[in-house]
Amino acid sequence: MFWLNGALLAGPTASFDLTDRGLLLGDGVFDTSLVLNGRMVFAERHFERLFAALALLDIAADPSAIRQAAEALSAGAERAVLRITVTRGPGPRGLKAPSPQRPTILAACSPLPETLFFSPLSLDVSAIRRNETSPLSQLKTLGYLDAILAYREAAARGHDEALFLNTKGHVACAATGNIFAVFGSEIVTPPLSDGILPGIIRGFFLDESYRVHLKAVEASLDPDDLMAADCVFVTNSLRLIAPVTRIGAAVLASRADEPMAALKVLLWQSIAREARLDGF
Amino acid sequence: MFWLNGALLAGPTASFDLTDRGLLLGDGVFDTSLVLNGRMVFAERHFERLFAALALLDIAADPSAIRQAAEALSAGAERAVLRITVTRGPGPRGLKAPSPQRPTILAACSPLPETLFFSPLSLDVSAIRRNETSPLSQLKTLGYLDAILAYREAAARGHDEALFLNTKGHVACAATGNIFAVFGSEIVTPPLSDGILPGIIRGFFLDESYRVHLKAVEASLDPDDLMAADCVFVTNSLRLIAPVTRIGAAVLASRADEPMAALKVLLWQSIAREARLDGF
Repeated sequence: MFWLNGALLAGPTASFDLTDRGLLLGDGVFDTSLVLNGRMVFAERHFERLFAALALLDIAADPSAIRQAAEALSAGAERAVLRITVTRGPGPRGLKAPSPQRPTILAACSPLPETLFFSPLSLDVSAIRRNETSPLSQLKTLGYLDAILAYREAAARGHDEALFLNTKGHVACAATGNIFAVFGSEIVTPPLSDGILPGIIRGFFLDESYRVHLKAVEASLDPDDLMAADCVFVTNSLRLIAPVTRIGAAVLASRADEPMAALKVLLWQSIAREARLDGF
Repeated sequence: MFWLNGALLAGPTASFDLTDRGLLLGDGVFDTSLVLNGRMVFAERHFERLFAALALLDIAADPSAIRQAAEALSAGAERAVLRITVTRGPGPRGLKAPSPQRPTILAACSPLPETLFFSPLSLDVSAIRRNETSPLSQLKTLGYLDAILAYREAAARGHDEALFLNTKGHVACAATGNIFAVFGSEIVTPPLSDGILPGIIRGFFLDESYRVHLKAVEASLDPDDLMAADCVFVTNSLRLIAPVTRIGAAVLASRADEPMAALKVLLWQSIAREARLDGF
């Protein structure tokens, strides 16, 4: 199912303005969320992040129209991925933003692969550095070509995903998720200023992990820190928690079965409540 | 006039696949060229660069279909801007490239502003650094949001354009053009490895400036070098040569009237030959 500017579509093809700045200049942002039992999981966290990004970019999309798209596509979906895309809309040639704007709201609901939750990942360190000097490094913009290239390289070397460092050499993030390292009862994840997205599951753990007696900390990590950690994991809204088994040639230790189990239960219980699944 | 996958369109609205990776992930490249007298100026340089970018990204678009789009839109345009956009085409969710690909070829021909050729520019140094660690920094990809943000900041501070340094602090490029600095009979421009696009006018001067007894050199430049230069100018396919009058608060010297005049004549004569303008 698809959505374009107020209309529900059965297929992906629609009448579209080819001067859309999302298409021509990557001038827009998106959000990917998990839908279970007809409900968008962590909906308010997702909307808050999306609206903040639109405000920073000065894209004047109507929040209620965005919510309407999400609700129309979530309703009736048992287990799906919802992607909401908002662009600055059509405009004349050049970088200058059109005035007035007519932002484009686009959404799609796709089947969720069965095997995604909690599956382990092997990471390849990309030669491409995450550019923490750009505010875009903290926004889920349409510019995903660095991640596409890094993923292609990682796959060619037999890995599942790419790991980005930033231009200072600190650990930033995976191509499609945040990084956490477990040290005893602390779980450490890079601060946003290291050039990373404020992931929804990352935010959940920063807020909620105290409930399972783990202290979540934002601090810069070096690659060596990952090697020394009790466990490293990637978070995103579809994989949830993905334990990292390898980084490049190095096989990673997993000496954190208890904290990992506690985080999984904490997260899954919240997701089940959000989705009003039976038995929770 | 517009073009989409083999069809000439009078207006910008067309039936379009909303799963296009150009729209959703910035997965594509483009080219902007000057059209004069019904002819795309420096056409072979533009095609060569575009085809090289597509090869690097492994986007399997048909070169003859791209040339066909350019010819259809150039013919009959007296003085215009041609933009050709090529994306990887529609695909399922996720970073993995679809196989087989059905690349999208999109083009538009717009009026050229009267005042653009040789107009001077005032530059604002952006806090966003150009990420020379990414191969994308050398390709004209759809991801232009850094340039949009930098342009917005520059305009808010009363400048015409943004100047990017790279993550090492070297001069990279303007948001929409290459940078040259004149020192005596040398014209110096940063190497591609500093994170810049191989601009068409830049390439022309590297190849041809010896004809007016100027030596073109690719070498890293620091911001101080620009301040010390006899003249600084920006090149792109629409502005051609734009003398830089200010960088931030600093007013720039212009002690290079002769070399600048020689470069303008050299370039304009080539453009006139390309476009078969009368009198050349």
